[in-house]
Amino acid sequence: MRVVAVAGGVGAGKFLRGLVRAVPREDVTVVVNTGDDLTLHGLHISPDIDSVSYWLSGVADRERGWGRAEDTFRVLETLRELGGPAWFGLGDLDLATHLLRTGILRDGGTLSGATAAIAGALRIVPTILPMSDDPVATMVECVGEDGRALDLHFQQYWVARQGRDAVKGVRYAGADAARPAPGVLEAVAAADAVIICPSNPVASILPILSISGIRRSLADRRSRVVGISPIVGGAPLRGMADRLMPAVGLEVSAFGAASAYGDLLSAFVVDLKDRTDASRIREELGVDIAVTDTIMHDDGSAERLATVALESLR
Amino acid sequence: MRVVAVAGGVGAGKFLRGLVRAVPREDVTVVVNTGDDLTLHGLHISPDIDSVSYWLSGVADRERGWGRAEDTFRVLETLRELGGPAWFGLGDLDLATHLLRTGILRDGGTLSGATAAIAGALRIVPTILPMSDDPVATMVECVGEDGRALDLHFQQYWVARQGRDAVKGVRYAGADAARPAPGVLEAVAAADAVIICPSNPVASILPILSISGIRRSLADRRSRVVGISPIVGGAPLRGMADRLMPAVGLEVSAFGAASAYGDLLSAFVVDLKDRTDASRIREELGVDIAVTDTIMHDDGSAERLATVALESLR
Repeated sequence: MRVVAVAGGVGAGKFLRGLVRAVPREDVTVVVNTGDDLTLHGLHISPDIDSVSYWLSGVADRERGWGRAEDTFRVLETLRELGGPAWFGLGDLDLATHLLRTGILRDGGTLSGATAAIAGALRIVPTILPMSDDPVATMVECVGEDGRALDLHFQQYWVARQGRDAVKGVRYAGADAARPAPGVLEAVAAADAVIICPSNPVASILPILSISGIRRSLADRRSRVVGISPIVGGAPLRGMADRLMPAVGLEVSAFGAASAYGDLLSAFVVDLKDRTDASRIREELGVDIAVTDTIMHDDGSAERLATVALESLR
Repeated sequence: MRVVAVAGGVGAGKFLRGLVRAVPREDVTVVVNTGDDLTLHGLHISPDIDSVSYWLSGVADRERGWGRAEDTFRVLETLRELGGPAWFGLGDLDLATHLLRTGILRDGGTLSGATAAIAGALRIVPTILPMSDDPVATMVECVGEDGRALDLHFQQYWVARQGRDAVKGVRYAGADAARPAPGVLEAVAAADAVIICPSNPVASILPILSISGIRRSLADRRSRVVGISPIVGGAPLRGMADRLMPAVGLEVSAFGAASAYGDLLSAFVVDLKDRTDASRIREELGVDIAVTDTIMHDDGSAERLATVALESLR
């Protein structure tokens, strides 16, 4: 049973720990968002790839969600003392990942190659692929408090400015020219199931689908594509999906999440709290529905969610 | 009394702590070697600028010589666990300096600007200038154990390969095109004294003098230039000057060190152990000699050495 997971960061990471219990881990390929990658202090930082890698390898910080467990912040605290830009959370253990990745890229390697090297070092069995080796930047078009237009990289919007600006639109800069990373199209074509993880549709999943080759490959496999709603009871469990979804014309609901991928889905999993969305999704989008508890308290509940998603395709 | 110090790393750092006790610290300008700068993991690392900055600000590790006191190596240890290149010593506190510098350079700043920003953050009063904002690389031409020629960056020769290769020559790649950093020529022209610090002649001082504008500026001020021998009793106190000096035709002695700068010097300070070199230096090079204890046990002995050097010009 070969499975492709289309993934963002933390929500996907939690889910993937369950998925690799539900199916053999060597049969899993994860295609990860890089739209919120950033270059900071000369380092190439891939927050979603890191989250997925840390969760899959078991070194993720479960409390904080991002970064590595038992991390310290000596470098960042010292950088702050030096008056340097310290708005982006960089743990000491986490920095080693960024140094390794940046070194590989500077030596002429690709993001795919760096991702594979890091996954290998962390003893991760599933294949982790960036959506693309080409740069794509999720840009959040905002209006600041003073009424001026602000064109912000996702990390500027969310981390540096802490999401305080009114969002008017989102675009994926570079997506037109970006090619799927090596292995992505092949993995989707060969998959028995493609799972769109319970990640932020606008910040995590739509950047991946903005690459036309990837979107087409999913459309070609629609009968094998299942999504999982990241919206529970009309709100995201964490993050800012409730602010980004309306800006791109999506309702903040399980229905809204389903409609973000509507023409690609065969099935969609919604939470028990969102039963009322089920019939709308079925009728308006022509998508099969599974209703279950989607809250992932632990690996066991994530495994049950993965099983429900896979069974919804049968 | 305006003083310019021409400086390498640790030896210069120790000396400068004494110099700023001997003369008002705001009257001191330090021109620092960048020939052993390297780019590693995408970070711009300037070992000699950092040593000078750490020593002057009082955060240097006095035992180890390089790096910051009370530093830890969490990032480097994690990078090693990940299988990344971990041959170059990067402390966690030290990394913050590299991140700040690299960020400034990536944002279009110069090495001068980054150096000033770091010095300001460390509350350093003397002016610290890189020799150049343009890249110059000290290349060590070696013969490996298998007899093959090896063209090694200084850090590859000394840190990565731990100085195990036979040295046949040294060159300063990029020096022909490199311009003195802003302020260097002005500082030398205005100086009442120019002190060549007790640093490795080949690895630290000659890279600076390989920039023709800087060499000319010192030649123009020869009557105000004094050097201090880094060779004591026929051997360097630390480092590999004894291996590099013969490769460029210099005797490993106080005389050899003086002859490295011979045509630029008005005076030279040698250690009590090297009295026998004094008359040769005076007669063959036409340079005044001061003989004193040059070992810097503490800031007080460094201050006395600085005073002897300055008085040798009177």
